Amino acid sequence: MGGNRELAERFIVSLEARDWDAWAGLLHPAVVYEIPQSRERIRGRDRYLRFNQEYPGDWHLRPKVTIADERHGVAWFEWLLDGRTDDAMAFFEFADGLITRVTDFWPEPYEPPPGREHLVERWLPAPAAATGAAPSAGFPAGANGSGARCPLRSSDCRTR
Amino acid sequence: MGGNRELAERFIVSLEARDWDAWAGLLHPAVVYEIPQSRERIRGRDRYLRFNQEYPGDWHLRPKVTIADERHGVAWFEWLLDGRTDDAMAFFEFADGLITRVTDFWPEPYEPPPGREHLVERWLPAPAAATGAAPSAGFPAGANGSGARCPLRSSDCRTR
Repeated sequence: MGGNRELAERFIVSLEARDWDAWAGLLHPAVVYEIPQSRERIRGRDRYLRFNQEYPGDWHLRPKVTIADERHGVAWFEWLLDGRTDDAMAFFEFADGLITRVTDFWPEPYEPPPGREHLVERWLPAPAAATGAAPSAGFPAGANGSGARCPLRSSDCRTR
Repeated sequence: MGGNRELAERFIVSLEARDWDAWAGLLHPAVVYEIPQSRERIRGRDRYLRFNQEYPGDWHLRPKVTIADERHGVAWFEWLLDGRTDDAMAFFEFADGLITRVTDFWPEPYEPPPGREHLVERWLPAPAAATGAAPSAGFPAGANGSGARCPLRSSDCRTR
């Protein structure tokens, strides 16, 4: 279990470091990677490695929370690209000390519906947005809705 | 730790059942609920309870994966509303057998950027979408991108 949590932590850290040998070493050769938002699937470590090696832009990842048990894990992390920052999360399945499945999500900012203002407070956009305001307390700096309209994986931001 | 996992599981199950006493009993009186995508925060169990009680529509939640350790937890679940279905996830912080913080995410479908077709396969939208195609194997039915453009919490779908 501790080993699985370490797998999840090293997944993000080695991606950030572009340490491809270390990263690929965490994965089962038949790993399946899925992005449910775009209905995309990559089968196998070699293709998944190539996907990340080819992914364009000077992207960066910062771990926030990692949780794992004997079967499943999750890494909630912050991504940064082209001055934008936001949250994403990767869920893992483990077997025999390796990652056998990765499913990640790239949520986008949105405006809340009216009608709940009597219950809700809102914090200001992160500094990356036009206001330049500091994020409010209680959440790590730069982790909140930055005004960015596109997740790292989205087609809306990237032309490639 | 097992207790925390049970807290996370009961969080979703009691919400689905509208068992408000059971649900509120999982929460610390000073619980903080945050929705980073809309930069919304609710402070306190009473307001958070009211937020959910007042939330419009015949929404339903189905747990998919729950993971917890001594401090953190996550529930990855499926939501259903007005014929749409998609994934969401709630992260938890625990203390003294109660949930002290909830942060949830409501990712939306998007189209992938071009340039990675040589590595990626795509599955068809879930039956809720116009095609009526069955979801592919390897992912629970109805869990994948359904063609819906709006998360449960989004202002784009709801007029309230």
